[in-house]
Amino acid sequence: KQEFSRFPTKAGRRSLSRSISQSSTDSYSSAASYTDSSDDETSPRDKTQVNTKGSSDFCVKNIKQAEFGRREIEIAEQDMSALISLRKRAQSEKPLAGAKIVGCTHITAQTAVLIETLVALGAQCRWTACNIYSTQNEVAAALSENGVSVFAWKGESEDDFWWCIDHCINTEGWQPNMILDDGGDLTHWMYKKYPNVFKKIRGIVEESVTGVHRLYQLSKAGKLCVPAMNVNDSVTKQKFDNLYCCRESILDGLKRTTDVMFGGKQVVVCGYGEVGKGCCAALKALGAIVYVTEIDPICGLQACMDGFRVVKLNEVIRQVDVIITCTGNKNVVTRDQLDRMKNGSIVCNMGHSNTEIDVASLRTPELTWERVRSQVDHVIWPDGKRVILLAEGRLLNLSCSTVPTFVLSITATTQALALIELYNAPEGRYKQDVYLLPKKMDKHFCILYFILFTGCTAYI
Amino acid sequence: KQEFSRFPTKAGRRSLSRSISQSSTDSYSSAASYTDSSDDETSPRDKTQVNTKGSSDFCVKNIKQAEFGRREIEIAEQDMSALISLRKRAQSEKPLAGAKIVGCTHITAQTAVLIETLVALGAQCRWTACNIYSTQNEVAAALSENGVSVFAWKGESEDDFWWCIDHCINTEGWQPNMILDDGGDLTHWMYKKYPNVFKKIRGIVEESVTGVHRLYQLSKAGKLCVPAMNVNDSVTKQKFDNLYCCRESILDGLKRTTDVMFGGKQVVVCGYGEVGKGCCAALKALGAIVYVTEIDPICGLQACMDGFRVVKLNEVIRQVDVIITCTGNKNVVTRDQLDRMKNGSIVCNMGHSNTEIDVASLRTPELTWERVRSQVDHVIWPDGKRVILLAEGRLLNLSCSTVPTFVLSITATTQALALIELYNAPEGRYKQDVYLLPKKMDKHFCILYFILFTGCTAYI
Amino acid sequence: KQEFSRFPTKAGRRSLSRSISQSSTDSYSSAASYTDSSDDETSPRDKTQVNTKGSSDFCVKNIKQAEFGRREIEIAEQDMSALISLRKRAQSEKPLAGAKIVGCTHITAQTAVLIETLVALGAQCRWTACNIYSTQNEVAAALSENGVSVFAWKGESEDDFWWCIDHCINTEGWQPNMILDDGGDLTHWMYKKYPNVFKKIRGIVEESVTGVHRLYQLSKAGKLCVPAMNVNDSVTKQKFDNLYCCRESILDGLKRTTDVMFGGKQVVVCGYGEVGKGCCAALKALGAIVYVTEIDPICGLQACMDGFRVVKLNEVIRQVDVIITCTGNKNVVTRDQLDRMKNGSIVCNMGHSNTEIDVASLRTPELTWERVRSQVDHVIWPDGKRVILLAEGRLLNLSCSTVPTFVLSITATTQALALIELYNAPEGRYKQDVYLLPKKMDKHFCILYFILFTGCTAYI
Amino acid sequence: KQEFSRFPTKAGRRSLSRSISQSSTDSYSSAASYTDSSDDETSPRDKTQVNTKGSSDFCVKNIKQAEFGRREIEIAEQDMSALISLRKRAQSEKPLAGAKIVGCTHITAQTAVLIETLVALGAQCRWTACNIYSTQNEVAAALSENGVSVFAWKGESEDDFWWCIDHCINTEGWQPNMILDDGGDLTHWMYKKYPNVFKKIRGIVEESVTGVHRLYQLSKAGKLCVPAMNVNDSVTKQKFDNLYCCRESILDGLKRTTDVMFGGKQVVVCGYGEVGKGCCAALKALGAIVYVTEIDPICGLQACMDGFRVVKLNEVIRQVDVIITCTGNKNVVTRDQLDRMKNGSIVCNMGHSNTEIDVASLRTPELTWERVRSQVDHVIWPDGKRVILLAEGRLLNLSCSTVPTFVLSITATTQALALIELYNAPEGRYKQDVYLLPKKMDKHFCILYFILFTGCTAYI
Repeated sequence: KQEFSRFPTKAGRRSLSRSISQSSTDSYSSAASYTDSSDDETSPRDKTQVNTKGSSDFCVKNIKQAEFGRREIEIAEQDMSALISLRKRAQSEKPLAGAKIVGCTHITAQTAVLIETLVALGAQCRWTACNIYSTQNEVAAALSENGVSVFAWKGESEDDFWWCIDHCINTEGWQPNMILDDGGDLTHWMYKKYPNVFKKIRGIVEESVTGVHRLYQLSKAGKLCVPAMNVNDSVTKQKFDNLYCCRESILDGLKRTTDVMFGGKQVVVCGYGEVGKGCCAALKALGAIVYVTEIDPICGLQACMDGFRVVKLNEVIRQVDVIITCTGNKNVVTRDQLDRMKNGSIVCNMGHSNTEIDVASLRTPELTWERVRSQVDHVIWPDGKRVILLAEGRLLNLSCSTVPTFVLSITATTQALALIELYNAPEGRYKQDVYLLPKKMDKHFCILYFILFTGCTAYI
Repeated sequence: KQEFSRFPTKAGRRSLSRSISQSSTDSYSSAASYTDSSDDETSPRDKTQVNTKGSSDFCVKNIKQAEFGRREIEIAEQDMSALISLRKRAQSEKPLAGAKIVGCTHITAQTAVLIETLVALGAQCRWTACNIYSTQNEVAAALSENGVSVFAWKGESEDDFWWCIDHCINTEGWQPNMILDDGGDLTHWMYKKYPNVFKKIRGIVEESVTGVHRLYQLSKAGKLCVPAMNVNDSVTKQKFDNLYCCRESILDGLKRTTDVMFGGKQVVVCGYGEVGKGCCAALKALGAIVYVTEIDPICGLQACMDGFRVVKLNEVIRQVDVIITCTGNKNVVTRDQLDRMKNGSIVCNMGHSNTEIDVASLRTPELTWERVRSQVDHVIWPDGKRVILLAEGRLLNLSCSTVPTFVLSITATTQALALIELYNAPEGRYKQDVYLLPKKMDKHFCILYFILFTGCTAYI
Repeated sequence: KQEFSRFPTKAGRRSLSRSISQSSTDSYSSAASYTDSSDDETSPRDKTQVNTKGSSDFCVKNIKQAEFGRREIEIAEQDMSALISLRKRAQSEKPLAGAKIVGCTHITAQTAVLIETLVALGAQCRWTACNIYSTQNEVAAALSENGVSVFAWKGESEDDFWWCIDHCINTEGWQPNMILDDGGDLTHWMYKKYPNVFKKIRGIVEESVTGVHRLYQLSKAGKLCVPAMNVNDSVTKQKFDNLYCCRESILDGLKRTTDVMFGGKQVVVCGYGEVGKGCCAALKALGAIVYVTEIDPICGLQACMDGFRVVKLNEVIRQVDVIITCTGNKNVVTRDQLDRMKNGSIVCNMGHSNTEIDVASLRTPELTWERVRSQVDHVIWPDGKRVILLAEGRLLNLSCSTVPTFVLSITATTQALALIELYNAPEGRYKQDVYLLPKKMDKHFCILYFILFTGCTAYI
Repeated sequence: KQEFSRFPTKAGRRSLSRSISQSSTDSYSSAASYTDSSDDETSPRDKTQVNTKGSSDFCVKNIKQAEFGRREIEIAEQDMSALISLRKRAQSEKPLAGAKIVGCTHITAQTAVLIETLVALGAQCRWTACNIYSTQNEVAAALSENGVSVFAWKGESEDDFWWCIDHCINTEGWQPNMILDDGGDLTHWMYKKYPNVFKKIRGIVEESVTGVHRLYQLSKAGKLCVPAMNVNDSVTKQKFDNLYCCRESILDGLKRTTDVMFGGKQVVVCGYGEVGKGCCAALKALGAIVYVTEIDPICGLQACMDGFRVVKLNEVIRQVDVIITCTGNKNVVTRDQLDRMKNGSIVCNMGHSNTEIDVASLRTPELTWERVRSQVDHVIWPDGKRVILLAEGRLLNLSCSTVPTFVLSITATTQALALIELYNAPEGRYKQDVYLLPKKMDKHFCILYFILFTGCTAYI
């Protein structure tokens, strides 16, 4: 029981996965408020709803929002051409015929395109949310209307969260044989509560770092009786999520929050891994003067050869306009350094946790916090100096910019391919262990993408 | 009377000036809704309001919003260091002592910083809005509370618009001697209605292309009895508003509206002037494959030497993902070409009018328009093809991205310097004509900026 | 007579013109040595030579080298497609029929292509060299063999120089009516010695800054009785010679002389005009960390917005690996600063004279000079510190890199078009003054180039 | 015996190693010709020479050239600061005391700095050349004068080559215990001819791909009785030799051979590995329009995201100005494609062999070859079309550009560290196998470099 007590807060467990960003949902807010404006405070668990086909095997905020959600899904389909293409190619062979998939992911228009693709390929699906806040209620309604049993709504309590997972797994006449998870909560619940169901699972596809970590632990302990696939570490995903995505989202995140002009600004990027490389390239291209701090000399030498001055943070702390952390380490920017930043400078985090900037140290009586916009705080020193802190030190790209649908589409296509692979693999190819996506599939997927992307059919 | 009947719609007359963008106001919407949520439908003209100093010589939505507006102004001051610096340097000499300025501009936090700087330098100011939509009510309240007579609110009728201008100019015991205008409406109203007041004006500073055009016409007709300064064509402003700003706002505008990933996208930019150069540089840097169309061979050769393939639009129309117009010409993208664009492609305008894309040709029965977000329409062909049209073909950077405060600050500083110059110029330096900002001042201003910007004092 | 006593040394008068570079001749050196290896020390003036058509109206080193020179010309034709295209288009209309042109330029394979184009268009030509060192003897022979009377050889004495000019102008039965000059020596000689011939000239085309300067002086003094065209200041030439050429030649010049690796090097570029912009862009792109010094704040602000730190030289003098001067001013790098440069650092000049680096100050007894390669000196301080000085502070791009034939081709095409324009202009279009190339022609030429360059016929 | 019959031609076996380039020796040619101008045709094997210390245990062209060679070495020391620093740090501890190293590498000023560093660290060295052409005679003399027994001269016959290797290994009272090889010839000779000596070797450091390949074969066959270290595949070397070096040498190689202007040129780069990435980045930065061909979809997608159009060669063959091969495959450019290239286009190879361009297919009677410069051939089609072939399809960066001393310095430092590691490793750390440089050492070396390079001591 202890095991499930860690409340699935967004900032904590979910921060490493490719969660849908706050601002992405914000961008649909007017729409949402239109349909959500009902004063309906009744918990979905207390309501009885029936879809137009007469089914009530679901639990969503309001099934009547289905039409609106359907439109959102259709718009998302526009940008997910790889997935749609996979759907068209494979729906005659039905590679997932007989698959009974339980899924636990963010429930958004993009996920809906994935789920409906799985259905088109022959699978039956039941779904629940991996985050208590991120569900798009209208999309959940549209899926439920379309025959997918969804148990999720925006603003679940912790108790709701586990109740939904439980209802997703456990219903009469349903014996799931595949899991698609993001964070490992559904997997763990099934492992603990329904060990006999768990043993019959043919494969798990896991999206997040945290979930993968939990699977490795199970595997080490000899308790993983099911082959699992780690789609977080695929070459393509890494490249896209880090270098190419961050190259764009650093600009987007800074602009949306602060309207800062990049040209001529002095910026220090802490860390020159893939994320740092992306940030540096983008900012340099837009006319910023970029410094790099780096503790690994090979990365440092790369920064050097790429034309960035490698410095210690303290050397430039007084002169820079923007600090961006991308190290994966703790307390890369300390209170002492924040004290020395100049008036009006910006500090934000693109790295792998919310501890790179020592935000806690700023919550002291002598400093005043002023929230000037969503995700933007002015921290004000006694002498009037203001430092602009974005997203309270959480990931800028998740909190303050949108993830391009194109990238979500890559992730979703990867997940679909991994499910197909695990479900169809010949006996013995996968044992009770955690696997990476096979190289060949990674490449196959890449070809698929490349064709769609460039129209170049050189690789067929 | 006929002369004033052209209604000052935003899309029409104002599109050429550096107006505050729609999205910029959007970004304060949560704040605005907080204070505006009153159901107060009473016209400000029908209310009697008094500020805490007992004055009622103003007309705004709600004087009680002053405190909130004051905070907005303080935040804006953070980013307008050049203006604040000018305020500090010059407030002891009071170079505008005795100046009575009537102003007609967008009324935003940034403008407020300008107005209060003029007051700090010795001027008395009365102000009105140059746009019926763009006024930030809280800021208008804060200014009025602080002793500046403001006549403006968000959502004026046409009649309100001219009523405000009239009350701004004409009040007992007030004889304006300087005009700061953006669009030329106040200037024209005074010229027509109060010719005797107009004759005593010592100088006009005009911000917009339209307003400057009207002044040149007056001058040609021999009717301009006042020296005027065209701050629209200053070197610095041109460079900033075009090359450097557009380099950033094309990315920002596309991202906020469509979340498109730039990497690998094929983009055609029509026109390789300063705006086109900025767009091309930014998109190339973010990994897009960029083509250029250009009818001037010198610009074409520059595009070529900068590494862009110069093509005719028809050569690439079927393959590109994004079309961006920056030519200043009409019908650069025709219906025929829109017919041949591929599904999901984006078309938008960064040029000087809303006629570069033949949007009118898309308003035909066989095409369906679907508004998917603010400023984003899907135009749907009978075969299901969707073309994504941004801002209905109006300027993307004004409609869908914010103007960095930094740039607004440059404009405001230029205006302040122009007012000081005209007000203090020795007899005879300026005749009844339209002037450009003197080179020396342009440079002086540039030095001011440069120091603030870089901390480098090499030029003092 | 005094007037002609200034010896036409390369470094002095010619440094501003687009002279053929030392290294360019170097690159043909093996070829040259092959044919030049004769021990023939006889002055060409003392020899009697006859070409295969029986003419002896020329004076070159060795007419027997004609075949070798012809091959050099054919190779040059490959890269001068604009000129060849002009030749083909216009040779039927013969726009220069009747023109008798005396020319004084560098005599290289590229110039030969120009001269033979003029002949193809109907002109008769007599030619001499504007520089005592730069003549390619084989090319002079090939031209002479082909019927152009050339008076030039490599290694003329000053007396030879003027003797050649005199023989070029003055021969029985020859009345020149056009001048193509580079440096103004031929023009001046004719003006002084043959005033009656000079008066009948229909036009002068002058290439160099020095020559143009002399023409303006004549014009001011009311003594210029002939229209002249300044082809040095054409838009296209300026853009090409500065921004685009220097972008390439800075890399080329540094690499050929020092084999320096650019990646990671710290470089300071003094001056951010077109030349500086080109240097900065290239070095930044290759991974150098670039600083800029600039005294004009508008250029400084541009540097800033382009992502370069603007500094004072003294701030970075101790840390940089390379100093490049592009200012046009004197003593931009002083002895005091050279004293503070670090061991192994490189200093060179891309600006407009050989005085930007105070090279004279380095010629003191305590410093040792060591020539390590052609154009490369190590200046060694008493403590063993070495500073690497390139081209003794003369123009790096002229001394140590080649000028792309493409650019020479632009210059030559410009000259041809200017001659055609002046020769065919209706009476009265040009008066006795110095003109810039008419805009329309500049554009016409640009179109010509653009088509050839891109294959895009959008402008025809 | 058969084994040694493969003549060590430069183009063949050595093409993969980091050999000194032809043009690099060219750049010293004037110096060389000065000292080499003796008509001395006597084979060094037939001469008896004695150095000033009375030793005659060496065989070089002319021991009297020692002083000139010493100066070359001193100049090279300027740019090899890492090696010099290593020399200074370690010469008190003498980590190579007792080491008796036989070496077979290119003999250049840079190698001399390495050899003299090994001596300073305590080693005794005997040396021979790995290439019959690349020896700098003056440097060989200087080393011999300084007590290192060198057996090498420029222009050895094959018989000389093996004679030198034999004399290097086999002399009375000398029992080598370490090998530094580049190509594996010395190793093989010792293995075959002196098996008893070979068994007592403590370690082999091998530089080239070919040599490493031979070592792996020996190891597989169970015949490698000595631990060997593969310094070719160190992370740092790979990054430097490929991405960063090629980024510079593609520009340098094209410029030196053809003087081509990059701006506006259409270029196709075949292959988007590290070499291709470097070439593309440099050419794009200089204003070329770059296309990529790539058969690996992951690399193709990277090219795409980096902003390059991925095409099939045939799509662009008629329009491009330059073709560059970087694939490592054979016949990437076929005769059929060469037939379709346009007049004046350039074709060259940066990849891993001389077979990427099907040069053999061009040696047919209907095509005329014309050598226009060193390393530059015009291949002329019957219709007059010329294609410019560089370095006869061999590696452009080795044949036509210099390798920066900085990079040679990295290689040399790596070799020295590998020797130290192998010589000092505790019993059992290395077995009879081929090893990569240990990560820690790679990093150690990287730190060393980084400090020297940037002056940043963050990693000490």
